[in-house]
Amino acid sequence: MAKQFEKKEITKKSKDISQWYNEIVLKAELADYGPARGTMVIRPYGYAIWEKIQSTFNQEIKKMGVENAYFPLFIPEKFLQKEKEHVEGFAPQLAVVTIGGGKKLEEKLVVRPTSETIMYSLFSKWISSWRDLPLKINQWCNIVRWELRTMLFMRTTEFLWQEGHTAHAAQKEAWDFALKILEKYQSLYRDLLALPFYSGKKSDKEKFAGADTTYAVELLMPDGKALQGATSHELGQNFAKVFDIQFQGEDGQNQYVWQTSWGLSTRSIGALIMAHGDDQGLILPPRVAPIKVAIIPILGKEDEAVLSLAEKVKELIEDKKSGQFGGRVEVWEISQKTFGWSVNDAELKGIPLVIPVGPQEVKEKKVTFKRRDGGEKTVSLESLAGEVEKTLMEMQNELLKKREAFLEENTREAKDYSEFKEIIKNKRGFVKAFWCEDPQCEEKIKEETKATTRLLPLKVKEEKGKCLYCGKEAVHRWLFAQAY
Amino acid sequence: MAKQFEKKEITKKSKDISQWYNEIVLKAELADYGPARGTMVIRPYGYAIWEKIQSTFNQEIKKMGVENAYFPLFIPEKFLQKEKEHVEGFAPQLAVVTIGGGKKLEEKLVVRPTSETIMYSLFSKWISSWRDLPLKINQWCNIVRWELRTMLFMRTTEFLWQEGHTAHAAQKEAWDFALKILEKYQSLYRDLLALPFYSGKKSDKEKFAGADTTYAVELLMPDGKALQGATSHELGQNFAKVFDIQFQGEDGQNQYVWQTSWGLSTRSIGALIMAHGDDQGLILPPRVAPIKVAIIPILGKEDEAVLSLAEKVKELIEDKKSGQFGGRVEVWEISQKTFGWSVNDAELKGIPLVIPVGPQEVKEKKVTFKRRDGGEKTVSLESLAGEVEKTLMEMQNELLKKREAFLEENTREAKDYSEFKEIIKNKRGFVKAFWCEDPQCEEKIKEETKATTRLLPLKVKEEKGKCLYCGKEAVHRWLFAQAY
Repeated sequence: MAKQFEKKEITKKSKDISQWYNEIVLKAELADYGPARGTMVIRPYGYAIWEKIQSTFNQEIKKMGVENAYFPLFIPEKFLQKEKEHVEGFAPQLAVVTIGGGKKLEEKLVVRPTSETIMYSLFSKWISSWRDLPLKINQWCNIVRWELRTMLFMRTTEFLWQEGHTAHAAQKEAWDFALKILEKYQSLYRDLLALPFYSGKKSDKEKFAGADTTYAVELLMPDGKALQGATSHELGQNFAKVFDIQFQGEDGQNQYVWQTSWGLSTRSIGALIMAHGDDQGLILPPRVAPIKVAIIPILGKEDEAVLSLAEKVKELIEDKKSGQFGGRVEVWEISQKTFGWSVNDAELKGIPLVIPVGPQEVKEKKVTFKRRDGGEKTVSLESLAGEVEKTLMEMQNELLKKREAFLEENTREAKDYSEFKEIIKNKRGFVKAFWCEDPQCEEKIKEETKATTRLLPLKVKEEKGKCLYCGKEAVHRWLFAQAY
Repeated sequence: MAKQFEKKEITKKSKDISQWYNEIVLKAELADYGPARGTMVIRPYGYAIWEKIQSTFNQEIKKMGVENAYFPLFIPEKFLQKEKEHVEGFAPQLAVVTIGGGKKLEEKLVVRPTSETIMYSLFSKWISSWRDLPLKINQWCNIVRWELRTMLFMRTTEFLWQEGHTAHAAQKEAWDFALKILEKYQSLYRDLLALPFYSGKKSDKEKFAGADTTYAVELLMPDGKALQGATSHELGQNFAKVFDIQFQGEDGQNQYVWQTSWGLSTRSIGALIMAHGDDQGLILPPRVAPIKVAIIPILGKEDEAVLSLAEKVKELIEDKKSGQFGGRVEVWEISQKTFGWSVNDAELKGIPLVIPVGPQEVKEKKVTFKRRDGGEKTVSLESLAGEVEKTLMEMQNELLKKREAFLEENTREAKDYSEFKEIIKNKRGFVKAFWCEDPQCEEKIKEETKATTRLLPLKVKEEKGKCLYCGKEAVHRWLFAQAY
């Protein structure tokens, strides 16, 4: 049997999730390792998922008046040093260009680990009056943060992201904007990627270097570890003061602007892969799946009739495709692959629906579609398109529900530190517990359990409790977890 | 008068085109200088043009079976050195990362000046059988080539582009593909950007470092200098041999693949700006204009009626908008700007149509739209949408015709070297002349006149002539010009 027709064997997810993840990413052709340490190649199938995330998010932020732009990759080293917390946060992760055009550079250039400093040096030039505000800019770009341990999509030296940056005349406006963006991230995860989450505020220790407040979306992976899905920062006037971004108000007085920044990266694809897949491979929620339906012909006898039916099935589905579930319907090229190999590969790649078309289907004028997450249905050609649409919708909803149930089951309350340690050790997942908000307790808990504060949910009321670590007074239950 | 309301003065294009160009790019808010030497910020108005180019080209290449992907920014230095011509071509322009994560790197990393080497190291891994071919991949990304003299969009250390890379089983297939892509570039320039061109083959000296043949689209700028708009390379098996990209053919024999690569950069925006603008500012062809129509209210009396009419005019145009000319219709925010300032700014920004709406328009139920390249028309509200559509179409065509006439007028034949020198010195533009295809003559001509061979048009027949420099036998008339 030729190499092309060999079934791609994979480790069971239930047995070793890390191994499974690495194999799926490579064998489903989502990504590959780049030759330079820590770098990643995003292959077409993985990149098509990113394009779907991009177009969905672009549409939302454009409605909010955000415009796309592009800022330089290279940041003069001194810029990064202007904001003290910021440089301390990023210094250990920088890649630095010291040679340009064959000569040693007088000033070293940092490859952007994020773009606050370079963008805000320009905001300072562009903003002079209240008429120039709000300024709402986003860019889709590559980012470099040196990593020693590579995990494709999850942790690489270079990754892709969007970073939005806004400047406002009033603090409240900036605050509201940061929260509004958080909502957009929530709906991206829930509605597109079928992933539930917790969202809320980060602790001072875990917030972005240079922010007043960081909001985040936190996901739960099947191994019980949390994954930060996106962040939205209220930057206050910290950068405005450093980069001198002032405007003349309607009252004629000069003031510093209030800023936000917010980002979502290709890590979201890592979360998608890890959360939904099973022992057979990837499972893609229909809305984000680059290929919604694979029609696989069974050849041997009656090839002409079979191929003609396969083509007809494709047309029927394509004609019907709605805005929600429009996407590629692929008839797999059978000249190159066997039926068995194709079915297996469609499963590995997580294509939501597979429709085999053979002599029997030709005879009966009925086809059966198989849902990647289980179940199948036989339908007439007349009702096919409608049934496909309906099934994709159901699958999208059920994948979300399944993850919601998992999140709920794996969120536990710990009344004291010994219970906390027991849950973290034996069950993982999110643990809700009172914490006094003293960074020292947070640090000790992390040292002893590897669990960090993930966030304080939004709009929680104050309660009376005792810090799980030091026993002092605490007013909020925070969410803790071990994290990616 | 507040700073915001001052008319933005610009140098006349007819007086000093370089100065005019720099001012337009900055004052129309297309781009700005980045803080690191040679870098550029693409502002939202400029980036919206790039997004239009991206979506147009993406649509075309996806039809051809090309898929988008993303390859790493960092290339190990030794990769670049594998192809001898390639490294010689790029060595003087490289930016090099020598520090990562706070440590000196054992192997230096080059910031990609183009991605042949990194992509093909992976192609070698992915391709093993004829079933894996053709492989057609494209990426939209940033590129770094060190530049000492910056000219925004035209020549910057970092720029954005798309680079397509394909591998084929047969030479003819690769050859045809490279030419097919050349056609896509032609139609992008002609139909979207309203820019005519010559297209054909580059000389050996001017071709891409590592290619067998380079095809190019060459534009003519108003100052008579040529600008290379895009290139498509037939790479032969040069890289395949170096990176060992072999496949087993249907006959069971191992063979090297045949490759193409092709690119179009943000330089195309530079060409667009320089070619169409006039003394008053930018002129954008309607198809690529981010804002097609600016509706500017004249306030003072009857503000309610005026604003309501402005809104109605907007709705009428938006309802009608077709696939061809759909785009933002902007009602300029009058709370912040005066009427005069807005009209002036719309002109500077090259918005195709401006419609003033004031008390007179309310009274007469008619509006007048002014075309950016001259002329105006008064129409009833009933016929407005249709007339706007028609006028945008006419404007698109006429801008192209105007540039076509200019290209024709500025393409001259030179029968000998003295005539050649006279044309290049006093008139510039393209000069057609016999050349023997000896690189020494090409080099001498360049030294003495600063004119280079731009290309040999496709499908020209052989003629009998004498080389304009050495007088030896020559069979083709090449196009020469001084170039950007």
